[in-house]
Amino acid sequence: MVEVGRTEGFAVDVDEIERAVGEVRAKLLFLTSPNNPTGNWLPDEALRRLLKLPVLVVLDEAYVEFADHPSRANWVLAHENLVVLRTFSKAAGIAGLRLGYGICPEWLMAVLWKFKQPYNVNVAATVAGLASLRHVDQIYAVVAKIKGERRRLLAALQQVPYLKPYESQANFILCGVVDRSAKELKLALERQGILVRHYNKPGLENCIRISVGRPEQTDRLLQALATLAG
Amino acid sequence: MVEVGRTEGFAVDVDEIERAVGEVRAKLLFLTSPNNPTGNWLPDEALRRLLKLPVLVVLDEAYVEFADHPSRANWVLAHENLVVLRTFSKAAGIAGLRLGYGICPEWLMAVLWKFKQPYNVNVAATVAGLASLRHVDQIYAVVAKIKGERRRLLAALQQVPYLKPYESQANFILCGVVDRSAKELKLALERQGILVRHYNKPGLENCIRISVGRPEQTDRLLQALATLAG
Repeated sequence: MVEVGRTEGFAVDVDEIERAVGEVRAKLLFLTSPNNPTGNWLPDEALRRLLKLPVLVVLDEAYVEFADHPSRANWVLAHENLVVLRTFSKAAGIAGLRLGYGICPEWLMAVLWKFKQPYNVNVAATVAGLASLRHVDQIYAVVAKIKGERRRLLAALQQVPYLKPYESQANFILCGVVDRSAKELKLALERQGILVRHYNKPGLENCIRISVGRPEQTDRLLQALATLAG
Repeated sequence: MVEVGRTEGFAVDVDEIERAVGEVRAKLLFLTSPNNPTGNWLPDEALRRLLKLPVLVVLDEAYVEFADHPSRANWVLAHENLVVLRTFSKAAGIAGLRLGYGICPEWLMAVLWKFKQPYNVNVAATVAGLASLRHVDQIYAVVAKIKGERRRLLAALQQVPYLKPYESQANFILCGVVDRSAKELKLALERQGILVRHYNKPGLENCIRISVGRPEQTDRLLQALATLAG
């Protein structure tokens, strides 16, 4: 594994990856789009360049249903070195049942079968997954509401003086916390019954990640953030 | 992996294993008791000897609730090289939800945590597993019925001229098929709506495995076997 530096806005640095892949003779490049926890999208042009590298590219699209851009699932048909991972955990909302899938070039299947664990997907996940597929319109109606609420939340967070929210293609918004401790902010919100994720590591210094919820939950959060502005 | 020959009645050949472990410098010995598909029990004395070998002994007790002997779960307290595996798949009847556990010496946990997959047991299995523990008396009442039916089934199978049933401590009975094809027998039963497992490999030549069911299912099976005797 090799780490490359971060860019402004968390864009994937294609130049850096091209250099690093050659340097360490990487065999696998793992990408996420939308990315967690930043919510940013990997642009077509960046992915196209990365697919030219001599590596297997695994693209995790766990949050893709929330994006304003289409999935790259069908790109697999045109790229022998692309695997797209999808899940029922996020948009379909059955994370607790553990159901996901990969879309792979055909040559890879023979390899994957060798490593497959003996047990298959549990029955509850199978039933819930099939139900999700039967009600996909209902899922996308909820997704549309979440995307609308994400717009409203982003606009409101941009007005909070001590937050620097990032545009997001996922169902959460990452915020840099300015001139105060993100951890303290997380704890203060927790005392008001609001749970956010806190990050403080290289590339993600002093950040919180807020999940997009229902309108009344957005209201409660904004109210709490206003109280804490003092 | 090393294979040792089979004994009459499928007893584990401790002498052979002792010899083979030294020969191949084995690190792990995987045992099952009751064994699948033979249903035979690993006697205390055999297990005690095997635990003296310089290997980690993993004992799969998937079917132990059906045995007339107690689990060796508490032996782990006295043996630093014993792991006992248990499951909710068989007696608790929730195979489709995938729930099992291991009972390990404490030193092994640090090693296992390194290899643990990131995801945990699914929520449906957690709920069903907890419900099973709340209703353990009910489970053992069903187990007692199955054990009673196993006795009746064994006695009846012993009267079938072309079958050689083996005594079983599990919820199935293995039968050698005498002077006719086990596979043909399996297919003939299948045509009557009765599914049995068929085995034909070294050590398990020309066998079928019959699961113990409800009394009326035993009756149907015995009827079918009588029809096929001709």
